[in-house]
Amino acid sequence: MHPAAARSRTTQGVFGMAPAGQPAPPWTTREWFNTGQAVQLADLRGSVVVLHAFQMLCPACVHHGLPQAQRIHAAFAASGVAVIGLHTVFEHHTAMTPVSLQAFLHEYRIRFPVGVDAPSGDGRQPIPVTMQAYGMQGTPSLVLIDRNGHLRQHAFGAVEDLVLGAAIATLIAEGN
Amino acid sequence: MHPAAARSRTTQGVFGMAPAGQPAPPWTTREWFNTGQAVQLADLRGSVVVLHAFQMLCPACVHHGLPQAQRIHAAFAASGVAVIGLHTVFEHHTAMTPVSLQAFLHEYRIRFPVGVDAPSGDGRQPIPVTMQAYGMQGTPSLVLIDRNGHLRQHAFGAVEDLVLGAAIATLIAEGN
Amino acid sequence: MHPAAARSRTTQGVFGMAPAGQPAPPWTTREWFNTGQAVQLADLRGSVVVLHAFQMLCPACVHHGLPQAQRIHAAFAASGVAVIGLHTVFEHHTAMTPVSLQAFLHEYRIRFPVGVDAPSGDGRQPIPVTMQAYGMQGTPSLVLIDRNGHLRQHAFGAVEDLVLGAAIATLIAEGN
Amino acid sequence: MHPAAARSRTTQGVFGMAPAGQPAPPWTTREWFNTGQAVQLADLRGSVVVLHAFQMLCPACVHHGLPQAQRIHAAFAASGVAVIGLHTVFEHHTAMTPVSLQAFLHEYRIRFPVGVDAPSGDGRQPIPVTMQAYGMQGTPSLVLIDRNGHLRQHAFGAVEDLVLGAAIATLIAEGN
Repeated sequence: MHPAAARSRTTQGVFGMAPAGQPAPPWTTREWFNTGQAVQLADLRGSVVVLHAFQMLCPACVHHGLPQAQRIHAAFAASGVAVIGLHTVFEHHTAMTPVSLQAFLHEYRIRFPVGVDAPSGDGRQPIPVTMQAYGMQGTPSLVLIDRNGHLRQHAFGAVEDLVLGAAIATLIAEGN
Repeated sequence: MHPAAARSRTTQGVFGMAPAGQPAPPWTTREWFNTGQAVQLADLRGSVVVLHAFQMLCPACVHHGLPQAQRIHAAFAASGVAVIGLHTVFEHHTAMTPVSLQAFLHEYRIRFPVGVDAPSGDGRQPIPVTMQAYGMQGTPSLVLIDRNGHLRQHAFGAVEDLVLGAAIATLIAEGN
Repeated sequence: MHPAAARSRTTQGVFGMAPAGQPAPPWTTREWFNTGQAVQLADLRGSVVVLHAFQMLCPACVHHGLPQAQRIHAAFAASGVAVIGLHTVFEHHTAMTPVSLQAFLHEYRIRFPVGVDAPSGDGRQPIPVTMQAYGMQGTPSLVLIDRNGHLRQHAFGAVEDLVLGAAIATLIAEGN
Repeated sequence: MHPAAARSRTTQGVFGMAPAGQPAPPWTTREWFNTGQAVQLADLRGSVVVLHAFQMLCPACVHHGLPQAQRIHAAFAASGVAVIGLHTVFEHHTAMTPVSLQAFLHEYRIRFPVGVDAPSGDGRQPIPVTMQAYGMQGTPSLVLIDRNGHLRQHAFGAVEDLVLGAAIATLIAEGN
């Protein structure tokens, strides 16, 4: 679950959020599920965004990352937090097609919008476009984006619920 | 995860095994993984067989059934117990192809032999051939077959490890 | 684990904190562990306080509440949050003495300060003094107190880590 | 949770039971709970016996050992297996008295008979009599005794449910 182009991991403290300043890259996607139309990051300006990158056949995503994203969706949707899934397939491309993803989302009862990260153009690079743009190290990856569209936290692997709840609340509080 | 052709559930007690008498139906499969050649039930005569029927996108299989089958494999392989997986796809057929299954088995590190249950011939019946022959109610299903090839236990859903360990040991003890 | 004098449960939303206004009652305690001296609420003015009321023989405290308090202590001590345990014995008084509590804290590796709630004066009331003053419904109970010593959240039973992390961060953010 | 007088751990395989031959030592106890009268090992001749040694303030007993003993009691009582608890206090003696134990058994809903291992006579030895007689290394310890009163398995620490269910079933099958 580590793509070749791994970046060094962002250190993560209790409120391990970067200061505002760096705008989050736009998303390049192919297809969306659980939403009537494509979701652009620019459309979410004004909302705190939790971007959850996963692969449907990644065990750590299925056991930890996606259930956590569902808990975030249940706990914070009423507070205006947008939870967005991104299917960043960088291995087993023929196994994790949109057709398979759709059945997966149905069976696992994932209700928030999920976009399919666009395959790299030249066909020789396994890592999809948005995953490259964000420098994600693998799946699951979690990205927090503030109300101004700035990248504030970027984590690969497991993040504790307590710490994550605190980080989200801090971003919510900033905007009020 | 319940096919239309559901049979009533076999009552399950502590040693809820049926008395010997009914031979387990043969398996009709298309493709095998984790083994050099197709595995026939008849080849396993003399061994206790644990047949685990699953679908790769069935959450109860991923969270409960398959980890249990892996524990059985780890605990009882040295005692001559054959753990066999059977991919009994009865829904989302285009999503759970052998290509996707192969990646799934790799990512979840499933090492025991897994056969793909053969699709029903007439193309209008979603339930595959072996699943029909055994009258399985859905996935995960667990079948215990004794050293003489007789069907001894048939469970749909979760079975406790303690009870299952006892049932397997009882079949092992019978043959000695 | 419900004392007779149960109050109706505080409704709990995502940020289910009461507005500031009501000062948290002072604590009346007998003995302290994990600290050189008695801790008074007034001494903690300026800090966010997480008060965790428990009984050492309460299974929900042992399985859920105390491990959560330990996670809070690990995650938020560096942010100036004070985690305080309160042993509010309202049943089995002869079984949960300070001597037993001391061994319990040692075996469960609980490191934050823990005070013993003072028994009710008249000897006929099983509920100890601080537990009565806060109107706690049972154990585990969790109380959040802001930097000004005001009571902001009061929960009986299980609270999700995500929601609790958010509530604590909101109180931390208020004071800055 | 390791007493000073630790013995080397019995190797444990899938059916890691010793061959019959060594009679299990009798029990020396002070007090019993959940039963009208003291239970002697000799009274249980003809039954498979699961002896679970624990301390009420031992976290591994509370989180793993005792819930497993409760599952064994639920699964195998109908098959004539006797589950017996033994409170083998070898540390914090003043904290884990029979009065505290009684409240503990009530709160954790432990229903099988529990005896209090008798303190060592000379008062300088912290390890109680039965614990010494069995050479237990600490808590939790699990001992399997066959229908003839012979010691067949002795484990310190966690044993998998699958393996334990198999061991118990093997002893049940022997006697039939």
